[in-house]
Amino acid sequence: MKQLYIIGAGPGGLEHLSPAARNAIDASSELIGHGLYINLLGPLAAGKNRHKTPMGEEIARASMALDLAADGLTTALISSGDPGIYAMATLIFELLDRQPRPKWAAVAIEVIPGISAMQAAAARVGAPLAHDFCVISLSDLLTPWETIANRIHAGGQGDFAVAFYNAVSNRRGWQLQKAKEILLQYRSPDTPVIVAFNVTRKGEEITITRLGDLDPEPLNMLTLVLVGNSETRRVGDWVYTPRGYHNKPELASE
Amino acid sequence: MKQLYIIGAGPGGLEHLSPAARNAIDASSELIGHGLYINLLGPLAAGKNRHKTPMGEEIARASMALDLAADGLTTALISSGDPGIYAMATLIFELLDRQPRPKWAAVAIEVIPGISAMQAAAARVGAPLAHDFCVISLSDLLTPWETIANRIHAGGQGDFAVAFYNAVSNRRGWQLQKAKEILLQYRSPDTPVIVAFNVTRKGEEITITRLGDLDPEPLNMLTLVLVGNSETRRVGDWVYTPRGYHNKPELASE
Repeated sequence: MKQLYIIGAGPGGLEHLSPAARNAIDASSELIGHGLYINLLGPLAAGKNRHKTPMGEEIARASMALDLAADGLTTALISSGDPGIYAMATLIFELLDRQPRPKWAAVAIEVIPGISAMQAAAARVGAPLAHDFCVISLSDLLTPWETIANRIHAGGQGDFAVAFYNAVSNRRGWQLQKAKEILLQYRSPDTPVIVAFNVTRKGEEITITRLGDLDPEPLNMLTLVLVGNSETRRVGDWVYTPRGYHNKPELASE
Repeated sequence: MKQLYIIGAGPGGLEHLSPAARNAIDASSELIGHGLYINLLGPLAAGKNRHKTPMGEEIARASMALDLAADGLTTALISSGDPGIYAMATLIFELLDRQPRPKWAAVAIEVIPGISAMQAAAARVGAPLAHDFCVISLSDLLTPWETIANRIHAGGQGDFAVAFYNAVSNRRGWQLQKAKEILLQYRSPDTPVIVAFNVTRKGEEITITRLGDLDPEPLNMLTLVLVGNSETRRVGDWVYTPRGYHNKPELASE
């Protein structure tokens, strides 16, 4: 069988890599992905043919993954986090849809979910995403800024907690500043904000601040930013978004 | 050390349970949770004291988990999916915030993320949540319907893909019907919709339909519904939401 696994390696630490992902890596002779993510696999990558492709060449990477599998080599395409959230899975299907090659038709595909960075960051600080939330990438490389800004407004209007991916990069810091200004039209400057860098990886740094104090300047492109909704609270070192049990005292009558 | 682990058991199949969660279960003498979720752990629950509490008694369950840990028994509070997404973690922090008991202060807490049902369902069908999305619970037990409806409108206005949790139950089927009607104000009846039941568990059923054809009647309370955004497409048996690479031909010039 010609097999392509599309794998989420989780946030980084191997303690969050699922057995399903581990088994698929074991079964593969070829690993393909950004070098950073293949390196995070550590000993699991030993003895595999490693095809490291740089950031920015995602289409070439997806195409090569399909080619390797079509050639009969069991292949694992590695994303960090969840391969279905701002990652490689969708590119495979986009290629099959828009630029199919005949030999790809014989490839069996399995997508294996992984723990996304927002989940690992949320767990470290408590439960900031415990009620309705939305997930927005601030990268305007592929999405027009007007679309992104419209979504931030929607996140504010709907009083969603918000997870911002691709929050800042060397090339762009103004987007997070703008996102902050938009959300401040809808919620208090006291809203808890979590700034998370390298979660579960070496050099992990997580800070909790207020929306009004969020400063995009010192952040980098691996930074994830979680913003609470209007009900998000702090208790001790923790941050949580309540589900509403405190409004239903009859449910508390144990 | 007095230790409470707040664990996400993942969508159900043990192949998606992280090593971190497994280690925490191994280290615990007490497992507490809804019986369904403890049962999903299968052999991992063997030899543990099991405290099964019914649906609807979440506050009592959280309180008992803190008590057990405070009494010096290493305790794992088990949610399905991710404990930080519509699950038990936030209740622990809410109790510590609003109804603290002195003995709870000595309890060390660790939240361990898990793969949420929306991720497992998305992986099964492709990559429908690959771009910005929002996550909305349709349960109005704890959240007023006006708030929920406002969020569905925001999801529509922002053209987010939407994951609906608690989509239907015996007591309520009209919410999903209403959600469908609201989203149809913003997007085409042809929008792909995924209806997923018991994902990764025995009896898994996943169907792909159109927003215009979504029928809440035959669904049940364990059903998860994913609705694509305006760009979500089908290719073969797969559904994906593109990230925009097709709009950037220069990125395709491999």
